[in-house]
Amino acid sequence: MQIKAERLFASLGEFARIGATPGGGVSRLALSDEDRAARDLLRLWMEESGMTVRVDDFGTMSGRRPGAEAGPAVLIGSHLDTVLRGGKYDGTYGVLAALEVVRTLNDAGMVTRLPIEVVNWTDEEGARFEPANTASGAVAGCFSRHFVYDRVDRDGRRFEDELRRIDYLGQEADRPGPAAAYLELHIEQGPVLEDTGLPVGVVEGVVGMTWTKVTISGRANHVGTTPMSLRKDALAAAACIISGVEQLGCQTPDAVSTVGRIAVEPNNSGVIPGQVVCTVDFCHRDSTALDGLVVGLQDLTAKTMDERGVDIKAEQIWRSDPTSFTPEIIDLVDDACATVGVDAMRLWSGAGHDAMYMSRLCPTGMIFIRSAGGLSHSEAEYSAPQDLEAGANVLLHAAIRLAQQL
Amino acid sequence: MQIKAERLFASLGEFARIGATPGGGVSRLALSDEDRAARDLLRLWMEESGMTVRVDDFGTMSGRRPGAEAGPAVLIGSHLDTVLRGGKYDGTYGVLAALEVVRTLNDAGMVTRLPIEVVNWTDEEGARFEPANTASGAVAGCFSRHFVYDRVDRDGRRFEDELRRIDYLGQEADRPGPAAAYLELHIEQGPVLEDTGLPVGVVEGVVGMTWTKVTISGRANHVGTTPMSLRKDALAAAACIISGVEQLGCQTPDAVSTVGRIAVEPNNSGVIPGQVVCTVDFCHRDSTALDGLVVGLQDLTAKTMDERGVDIKAEQIWRSDPTSFTPEIIDLVDDACATVGVDAMRLWSGAGHDAMYMSRLCPTGMIFIRSAGGLSHSEAEYSAPQDLEAGANVLLHAAIRLAQQL
Repeated sequence: MQIKAERLFASLGEFARIGATPGGGVSRLALSDEDRAARDLLRLWMEESGMTVRVDDFGTMSGRRPGAEAGPAVLIGSHLDTVLRGGKYDGTYGVLAALEVVRTLNDAGMVTRLPIEVVNWTDEEGARFEPANTASGAVAGCFSRHFVYDRVDRDGRRFEDELRRIDYLGQEADRPGPAAAYLELHIEQGPVLEDTGLPVGVVEGVVGMTWTKVTISGRANHVGTTPMSLRKDALAAAACIISGVEQLGCQTPDAVSTVGRIAVEPNNSGVIPGQVVCTVDFCHRDSTALDGLVVGLQDLTAKTMDERGVDIKAEQIWRSDPTSFTPEIIDLVDDACATVGVDAMRLWSGAGHDAMYMSRLCPTGMIFIRSAGGLSHSEAEYSAPQDLEAGANVLLHAAIRLAQQL
Repeated sequence: MQIKAERLFASLGEFARIGATPGGGVSRLALSDEDRAARDLLRLWMEESGMTVRVDDFGTMSGRRPGAEAGPAVLIGSHLDTVLRGGKYDGTYGVLAALEVVRTLNDAGMVTRLPIEVVNWTDEEGARFEPANTASGAVAGCFSRHFVYDRVDRDGRRFEDELRRIDYLGQEADRPGPAAAYLELHIEQGPVLEDTGLPVGVVEGVVGMTWTKVTISGRANHVGTTPMSLRKDALAAAACIISGVEQLGCQTPDAVSTVGRIAVEPNNSGVIPGQVVCTVDFCHRDSTALDGLVVGLQDLTAKTMDERGVDIKAEQIWRSDPTSFTPEIIDLVDDACATVGVDAMRLWSGAGHDAMYMSRLCPTGMIFIRSAGGLSHSEAEYSAPQDLEAGANVLLHAAIRLAQQL
């Protein structure tokens, strides 16, 4: 059995129009008018495919295709929201490939043992309402409903109010599931598959992550009148931290480390920087190794303070433990790749996904396809048609196995 | 002969009220209402001291105290404008100390051979209308009148219109001078005198300066999904440049080097920086050494490009040659320090001053006094009363010598 690639591409093309940007990408922030339009179209198509559509108390949509048995369902899906000026694929590909799986089963007249549900999670990106994965996090019990409802966007608009405004405020009883398993197909959003020359990845888990806010206090002064020996230059100290953080990531196997954000005061030519605030990100699949990176940062800040007479405060503002997906699901996705005849490799996700929270509730796995240039959250995001097709076929066969075997 | 310190402090106190900030500083931007109020008070006090006040085509004010001869005058002064939330001393001290010199000569009934003019330059700071030292630069022939008149502030208001609005648009014939010499007293704005433990500095010149805009283009990508080996992190490359620039300044005697300004794109936690633009400042008293620093930066950017696979463009956006003051004036200020009995050292100014441009027109020198903590352009700017007094007495005796000898 195979999905109809042309139908999948046509569906992706339709959705790429909803919130299309002049730069060839998509802006479809969670609970915006564009998100509503995308939801309405998904609902229509799910109903046309004979599915029963439900909307839960966070706006998450699920469409159920009945199985021979009435019990827990196999959940497949992803999210339709995007970042500002994001790409056409990202989560949309995972939702529409899941719909394509159902359409393919319908074409074949196949009745699976377990029901299959196509899921569209609300606010995966966290681009409008922070943090990311709000709805799946709440379903997994990590955020309270109150917390989620009171999230506000930059214009002060509340999550709950916006959910009601777009007519997608449903009932707790209509949350996706109960779930026998959760499987999510997504673009890789990184360069590993492309670098290895493979179209599909079998995801073993999501790396853990820490964010540390580092504040360096030096002394602002006139650049021309202050000799080098009498300076406390906060940006020169930050340069030591940035280089040291990079070294930590390079020296620790499977680690990545980044300073992505920096704010300098007063940030004028002519003035020695007096204060720098920057954010240090570490990612690792192993919790102990992740802690080791944080200790390495502490040593680095202590050394820099000693050497430069500046004051440095490091404060951990976020930590997310590594998530290992279910070994049986990983093996089953491997088998599905073999059935489809697609070459694949195992890898870890460096980005967060709703699958991270779903793994707390049921056996969970993910499938990645190759991202051109490793680009994501970019209008230039691209995955080749043959990779889109291969990933959807792996999802199809993995979903069938899950729905028959579990 | 000695100035009356209490009168000088009282004058400084009066001017500190004009544009006083809640933080204890002064905001008196060029050609603002506060600048007008300060000018009006200076005019009144100059007239009360028997001086003839003139205003030129850039708003620069000069008050003349006649000499026995009618020829060129000895010009002493500085500027009354400040940066936003600047200090109470800066240029105001130099103007009011010059006025105090005239008041002291009046008290003594002394007639000097040459006339003495007290000058208040318009727009020294360049904080409202860029660049700095606009009026003295124009008088020295470095900027055209047209160029100066068309400078606009952040709200789009033109220099000429604002000059007319505050009633300080005068005639070209009323520019300060003709000048036999120019001598400016100013706070040091740096920590060298304090660090050496001396109240007064005899300024040998103003260092030369280059500003280079460095643009580093890497590749933005997701921090979690992009292995260290596949990155082109523009901020990590910038850290190498920042550290290297600092090293250049430390390794070259009498040099200072700074990265004061940095802009990172997209500057988000979670995204590897794709582009960094930063400004590199070098200062040196020697033109050849200054060029050597710029060559050092070129080597540094070439090495960083090679090692990291990023693209780096370095573009010199400003160069100001070193200015050496007149040896005879420097010696004469040394002698005045000896007469007053104040310990002094020779030093170079790392900041630009109107004296820089005046040195193109006539024999020129400067006197510095100690700045507490080396602070300037800050509400916390401070110089001790005994230093304020010592500097004004050095100015008095240097001015007398100039007016009698030249």
